[in-house]
Amino acid sequence: MNDTGGYRGAALRVLNDAGAAVGDSVVITYKDGTRRAGLLMPRYEHDDDTHVVTKLSSGYNAGIDVDRIREISVDRRSAVTDIGRGDSNGNGDDAAAEPPGSAARNRAGEKRILLLSTGGTIASRIDYRTGAVTPVLSASELLDSIPELADIAEIDSEVVISEYSENIMPEHWLTLARRIDERVTGLGAGDAAVVGDGGKSGTAGDAAASAGDIRPYAGIIVAHGTDTMHYTSAFLSFALAGLPIPVVLVGAQRSPDRASSDAATNLIGAARFIDSHNGGGVYVAMHGGSGDDEIACHVGTRVRKNHTSRRDAFETIGGRPAFAVSAGGGVSPGASDPDGAGRPRPGPGYSPKISLDQRVALVKYHPGYDPAHLGHIIDSGCRAVIFEGTGLGHVGRAVYGQVARAGERGVFMGMTSQCIDGRTAMTVYESGRDLMEMGVVPLGDMIPEVALVKAMWAASLAEDSEGIRRIMLENVAAEMTAR
Amino acid sequence: MNDTGGYRGAALRVLNDAGAAVGDSVVITYKDGTRRAGLLMPRYEHDDDTHVVTKLSSGYNAGIDVDRIREISVDRRSAVTDIGRGDSNGNGDDAAAEPPGSAARNRAGEKRILLLSTGGTIASRIDYRTGAVTPVLSASELLDSIPELADIAEIDSEVVISEYSENIMPEHWLTLARRIDERVTGLGAGDAAVVGDGGKSGTAGDAAASAGDIRPYAGIIVAHGTDTMHYTSAFLSFALAGLPIPVVLVGAQRSPDRASSDAATNLIGAARFIDSHNGGGVYVAMHGGSGDDEIACHVGTRVRKNHTSRRDAFETIGGRPAFAVSAGGGVSPGASDPDGAGRPRPGPGYSPKISLDQRVALVKYHPGYDPAHLGHIIDSGCRAVIFEGTGLGHVGRAVYGQVARAGERGVFMGMTSQCIDGRTAMTVYESGRDLMEMGVVPLGDMIPEVALVKAMWAASLAEDSEGIRRIMLENVAAEMTAR
Repeated sequence: MNDTGGYRGAALRVLNDAGAAVGDSVVITYKDGTRRAGLLMPRYEHDDDTHVVTKLSSGYNAGIDVDRIREISVDRRSAVTDIGRGDSNGNGDDAAAEPPGSAARNRAGEKRILLLSTGGTIASRIDYRTGAVTPVLSASELLDSIPELADIAEIDSEVVISEYSENIMPEHWLTLARRIDERVTGLGAGDAAVVGDGGKSGTAGDAAASAGDIRPYAGIIVAHGTDTMHYTSAFLSFALAGLPIPVVLVGAQRSPDRASSDAATNLIGAARFIDSHNGGGVYVAMHGGSGDDEIACHVGTRVRKNHTSRRDAFETIGGRPAFAVSAGGGVSPGASDPDGAGRPRPGPGYSPKISLDQRVALVKYHPGYDPAHLGHIIDSGCRAVIFEGTGLGHVGRAVYGQVARAGERGVFMGMTSQCIDGRTAMTVYESGRDLMEMGVVPLGDMIPEVALVKAMWAASLAEDSEGIRRIMLENVAAEMTAR
Repeated sequence: MNDTGGYRGAALRVLNDAGAAVGDSVVITYKDGTRRAGLLMPRYEHDDDTHVVTKLSSGYNAGIDVDRIREISVDRRSAVTDIGRGDSNGNGDDAAAEPPGSAARNRAGEKRILLLSTGGTIASRIDYRTGAVTPVLSASELLDSIPELADIAEIDSEVVISEYSENIMPEHWLTLARRIDERVTGLGAGDAAVVGDGGKSGTAGDAAASAGDIRPYAGIIVAHGTDTMHYTSAFLSFALAGLPIPVVLVGAQRSPDRASSDAATNLIGAARFIDSHNGGGVYVAMHGGSGDDEIACHVGTRVRKNHTSRRDAFETIGGRPAFAVSAGGGVSPGASDPDGAGRPRPGPGYSPKISLDQRVALVKYHPGYDPAHLGHIIDSGCRAVIFEGTGLGHVGRAVYGQVARAGERGVFMGMTSQCIDGRTAMTVYESGRDLMEMGVVPLGDMIPEVALVKAMWAASLAEDSEGIRRIMLENVAAEMTAR
C-alpha cells in the first residue's frame, strides 16, 4: 500500500481537496444532502478510482461514488492507516472490524435479526364471521405468535408501513429502503454520526439506539404482502446493492391465525437462512412446495408470484431457488446454482442509491393493442417504457410508428417477454431487428416486473436514455443470468 | 317426435312464418347478409327453443340462433322427416348422414385433413449466412417436406395469411375463422348452396370444390407463428364454438430446415390427433417435453406460451394438456382430466359467431401504474377493460378513481391475475370487495390473454356492459375450469 492508501485519480483528488487521509474520521455530505460519517478506509491498488470507502459505526464498509459527494469534512485526524486492526478506532470495541456475521452473535451465540413489518396477510387475522382477512397484527404481536423465532435469534421488531401489498407504492419502497439502510448503518438519512468516539454516540436510528445493543444485525426480515412482494424485493435489490447482510422478504398466503398458515414456517425459514448465511443480498423466502418441509429462498430479482393462492406461489424464474431451508433447519444452496453465480455478489462496497423516477411505463403488447395508448404514454412524459413483447421480444408492425416516435423523443425502450421464462433474442427475426434499429434494447432474461422496477431506479440515476441503457444492461443484483 | 319436429317457442314461430318444415331444403339469410343452405333438421323436445338446426352439404349440423336470422326461404319441400336415414337427400350419397369421422375416410381408410398456413417459423427457413429466419415456405412446400404426413391422412393445403405471429392482428383472426367455417360448411360467406341436388353443386368454397372430393375434412391444421398462437386459438375457440371437427394450431420454435426443428413432429402429432379424435374443439399441438417423444394437445383457451425458445414452450395453465400423442402414434387423454370435463364440449349445434370489437384494453397493474393511462383508455372509447391485477385480483387504491369512472361510463371491467396460474377471489380482501362494488367482475381462472380475446368477441355480440358480463361469465369453450 502506498501513502495515498491505494487511492488514485478522481477519488484521490476528492480526498486531497478535503485534506483527508486514510484513517481519518470523516463526515461525507452527498449532493442530495444526505450525510454519512465513517472512518476513511484504504483501497487496493487495482480497485477503481471512482469510490471512496468508509467503515461505518456498524462495522460495515460503504463505498461512495465520488460523483455523489458534495463535501468531505475531516472530523479528527487519526494516525491509523492499517484499518485491518480491531482496535483501529481506539476504544477496544472490535465489532467494527469483525466480520458482521460473528459480530452479530451475542454471548449465547445468538444473532440479532430485525423484523420490519409492512403489512399484508402475514400481519393479518381472518374474520370468521365474514371469511374476510383484515390487517391487525403489529410486528411484535407477530413475533409473539411465533415463539420458535426466539430460539433462533434475538429479534427486534418495527412497523414501517401497514398496507396490503396491492397498495404498496414506489414511495413505500423508498421508505423501506431508507429504514433498512438506517438500521444497517446505524444512521438516519440526513443525520451524521462520528465513528471516532467509539461508535456509540452516533447511532441516530432510534430502534438501534433504543435497543441499547450496538451489535449489528445479522440480517433483516421484511414481512410483506405477497401481491407485490417481488416488485419490492427487486427495488431493494437495486437500491441496496452490495448490502453486506441479507434482507429477506417474507409473506403468507394464509393469515397467521389459520391452521394452514404459512406465516410461521416462512418466518422461521427466513431466520434460519439469516442465521446460516454469511453473504448479503435481497431474498424472498416462501414455501418451496405444497408441504411444510421446505422453505425456498429466491434471489430478489429472479422471483415472481406465479399462483394466486398456493403457499408455494413464488418461483425462481429460469432456475431453482438460491437456497432451501429444510424442516430440520438445514440450509443448502439450490441444486442448479451451487456456486452461486446467479446470486447477488458484493460490489466494491455498499453504496446505496435509494431513489426512483416513476415516469416509467410497462406496455404489454397483444394483437389489437391500440398504438394510441403508447402515444399517450409518450406524451405524458415517460422517460422509459418496458415492453412485455411476444416470444423472443416482438411487438407488431402496427406499433412501429409510436416506437419510432418514442426513440426520437429520447425515451428509453427495453424489451422483455410476456413468456416470462426464457430470454429475449431480437436478432433472429426481422421484427426484432427492426425494433432494435428504432432503439429498443433487449433485456436478456430480465423478468418484466423486475425490468420495470429497475428502469424506475435507473431513470433516477441517469440523465438520458443512454445513461438508462447503460444501467439497464449492467447486472446490478443478479437480475440477469448467464446464458 | 311430434309433427313440429321438436321445435317450439321462438324457433317454431320463425319456421312457421317461413312455411318451413323439418326435411325441407332451406336457405337461411342472416341479419348480417350471410346465407347458409341446408336441410332442416329435427330437434329433441328438451332442446332449447332459440336455435334452428340444419344439416349442411358437408354432413355437419349447424345450429343457428333465431335472433340472427333475417329470413328463411324454402327451396324444395321434401317428405323426409326422419333425418337419421342415410338416403335422406334422395341421391344415395350417404356422406351427409354419416358421422363426420367415418365420412372423412377414403377407400384406403385415410381421413382428409386441411392444412391452412398463416406463416410463422413453421413456414420459414433459416439464412445460414446471417442466422436470421425468413418466411419462405408455402403450405404445400411445407407438406412436401414432411412425407410422413401422407401416410396418416390425405392432406389439402392452402395459404390463408403469411405473417409472423407478432404481426397477426384481430382482422387476421376473422379471416382465418371465416376460411375455416367455409371449408367446414362447404360454403363461402355470403354464398348459398342447395343441399337438395345431392350436395355437390353447392360447394362454394374453392378448395373444397377444386379438390373434387366432397368428403368432409376430419380436421383442420393451422400452421401459425408461436408468438401469438394462443391468442388466435382463443379467438377460434370462441368464434367457432361447437365446431364438430378439431382445429389444431401448430407452430415451430425452430425452422423446418434445421435438424432440431419441431415443425415435422408437431405437424405429425396434430395429424395423428385428428385421425384419432372424434370430437370437435380448438387445440394447440406442440412439444410436450424437451425430447421428441411426446406432442401435447392443449385446449385452445387454456394454453400459454411460457418460454421464449424451448420447444415445449406451450403449457396448459392449471392442469395437464388435454391429450398427449406419443412418438409411437398413440393418443391418450391427459392424466388430470381423463373424463374431459375441461375440454370444449359440443353445444346445441355449430353456430359460428365470427366477429369482434377491438375497443378492449388489457391493463397490467403494478406499483406506480399511472392512473392517467387508464383514464386515456376510458376516454378513447374502450368498451371493456381486462385487468391483470395482482394476487387474487387487486389493483391499488391509486387507480380507484379511474375504475369508478369506467364503471359509471358503462365500461365492462373484468379481473384476471398476473400470477397467470390460480384463480381470482375478490371477496377475501377489502381491495377486492371495493373493486367489485365499482363493477369489476372476477373472471375465475381465465388466463388474461384469453379474457382479452373473449372480451373483444363478447363486445361485438353484446350491446352493453351487462351483455358483455353475461357472455364473459358463460363457459363457452372450456376457458374456465371448475374449482
